[in-house]
Amino acid sequence: MNDVASLAGVSRGSVSNYINGRSNRPEIKLKIEKAIKELHYIPNATARALKTSRSNYVVFILPTVNTPFFSELTYYIQRQLNNFGYKMILCNSNSDYIEEIEYIEMANTQKVAGVITMSYSDISNLISPTIALVSIEKNISKNFPTIISDNYTGARLGAEQLHKRGLKKILFVSKLPIKDVSETRQQGFMDYCQENNLHYDMILAEDKKDFIEDYDRFIAQHLIGGKFEFDGIFSDTDEYASDFWHLLMKHNVSVPNDVQIIGFDAAKIYPRQPVFLSAIRQPIEEIAIISVYKLLDQIDGNPIAENDLITRLPMSFKEGITTL
Amino acid sequence: MNDVASLAGVSRGSVSNYINGRSNRPEIKLKIEKAIKELHYIPNATARALKTSRSNYVVFILPTVNTPFFSELTYYIQRQLNNFGYKMILCNSNSDYIEEIEYIEMANTQKVAGVITMSYSDISNLISPTIALVSIEKNISKNFPTIISDNYTGARLGAEQLHKRGLKKILFVSKLPIKDVSETRQQGFMDYCQENNLHYDMILAEDKKDFIEDYDRFIAQHLIGGKFEFDGIFSDTDEYASDFWHLLMKHNVSVPNDVQIIGFDAAKIYPRQPVFLSAIRQPIEEIAIISVYKLLDQIDGNPIAENDLITRLPMSFKEGITTL
Repeated sequence: MNDVASLAGVSRGSVSNYINGRSNRPEIKLKIEKAIKELHYIPNATARALKTSRSNYVVFILPTVNTPFFSELTYYIQRQLNNFGYKMILCNSNSDYIEEIEYIEMANTQKVAGVITMSYSDISNLISPTIALVSIEKNISKNFPTIISDNYTGARLGAEQLHKRGLKKILFVSKLPIKDVSETRQQGFMDYCQENNLHYDMILAEDKKDFIEDYDRFIAQHLIGGKFEFDGIFSDTDEYASDFWHLLMKHNVSVPNDVQIIGFDAAKIYPRQPVFLSAIRQPIEEIAIISVYKLLDQIDGNPIAENDLITRLPMSFKEGITTL
Repeated sequence: MNDVASLAGVSRGSVSNYINGRSNRPEIKLKIEKAIKELHYIPNATARALKTSRSNYVVFILPTVNTPFFSELTYYIQRQLNNFGYKMILCNSNSDYIEEIEYIEMANTQKVAGVITMSYSDISNLISPTIALVSIEKNISKNFPTIISDNYTGARLGAEQLHKRGLKKILFVSKLPIKDVSETRQQGFMDYCQENNLHYDMILAEDKKDFIEDYDRFIAQHLIGGKFEFDGIFSDTDEYASDFWHLLMKHNVSVPNDVQIIGFDAAKIYPRQPVFLSAIRQPIEEIAIISVYKLLDQIDGNPIAENDLITRLPMSFKEGITTL
């Protein structure tokens, strides 16, 4: 932490704030991120561990690497681990409990240095409290740090962005079941709308393979003389927002002229691509940097401070071509 | 191979054809893929190797996991390795030669069981001929098998699909430099057009950060009374096709009514998503299955047959909403 502070020319407190998701002025944040990236240093304790032939493999468990959000996260975590001399073992678990156990077991028996997990299974009972582990998004237990985006405030920001564009009839688009982060996002959206007397409705597709048929039917039923009854759409994922967008196009509804859409994640198909779908964006690179930092801290044998167990990172609005 | 043939109820010859990319009837192909997936068996020699504590890590080197094609490929390769008891070490090399060397060195010193690489660097001199290695797309050396999609025939298929829709003025969209598979795709497209007297033009953006400005200017220059001069577009990547599509939308050109577009890869943002951009598609899951099979064959100590060094897999056309 001292090295980072010194190279960045900021206080140790600012670095501590950064690592624990507390706010810093943007220019300070940039300096810290730059310093962490530039240092590429292997901390003393970690260097010792490597010398004593402890494994330098870190397991990364996630449902699947095959979505834009997850593949971008995987990219940054692997790069960040690499900066510190660690290699990533990738596990697409498909949320398969049995498979996740095997990887956790590898960590328990010290075959790997640690685990970064984005698992949705309840694996808390399986994990020895002595291993190094960081959980992204889901709070697994009081023994390990959790890194999560501030989904509630992010969803409020989405509703606010529609509101300040003067839109009057907002539609929340999602799919059942609404749980975990979806629930938090829905709550943030509803709270903002209620507090600001903003009219909203919801279309929640059934949990079935051809769920977008529900959206298609809903759009057909709410077209009056070719005009869609809603003028603003917010979804808790880019996926549903993007499905809905393309269905509106099919029904000749003009986006963003007649209907404006805000999704969640601002995923890009290609790294260099401009964002097409306006959306609330998670700070993916920051999640990666902080997750790796908190993992290495444990590997180095530092105790986890109780008030730093949950790191909640602010989200931002990225404007694409689906809002005016 | 016998186990696969027996479970699939097909001849050993058919399995051999499949593994070496030679054609089989589609129903036979499906049976073989199903059998390979269902078997999940650890071949005898591999089981022996695992017992003798040889590492069960396989390195997968690719430029970046953060594009739809690469993340889907990574997903299937990891799942397929997992079926055979192997773990994937992921390396996003960003085509960094130095970093690739480190992973190749791990393989040379037997710290990992093998390497699957999609590297664009020339790493042939670094690799000991005794390690197990499979190269995807690029033919590295005569010592190792290459798995590649049949890009030339795929590009011809793209031109043919535009042709049979009665389109007359075709535009090839890409970016400089045109090399490797891009060159093969461009050649296939041009050959088809020339052989069939199909008029075509090309827009090749400069190799710069804001290259899509070139597309934007080109569109503006070729709009006559709001109508775009070309009625068919083919690109050697989804990326440029998709950039072009969105720019046409911005200029109020109707896709697919006035201009039809075919890209390359048919990438989906989400696994469940219907394909939006009509495109030529690589058989990604098949590439993964065959790459892993050919790697395990080497790990098992089987010699690589000289006439099976290059496996060229057929591509197909996936219809999205950008063609009629």
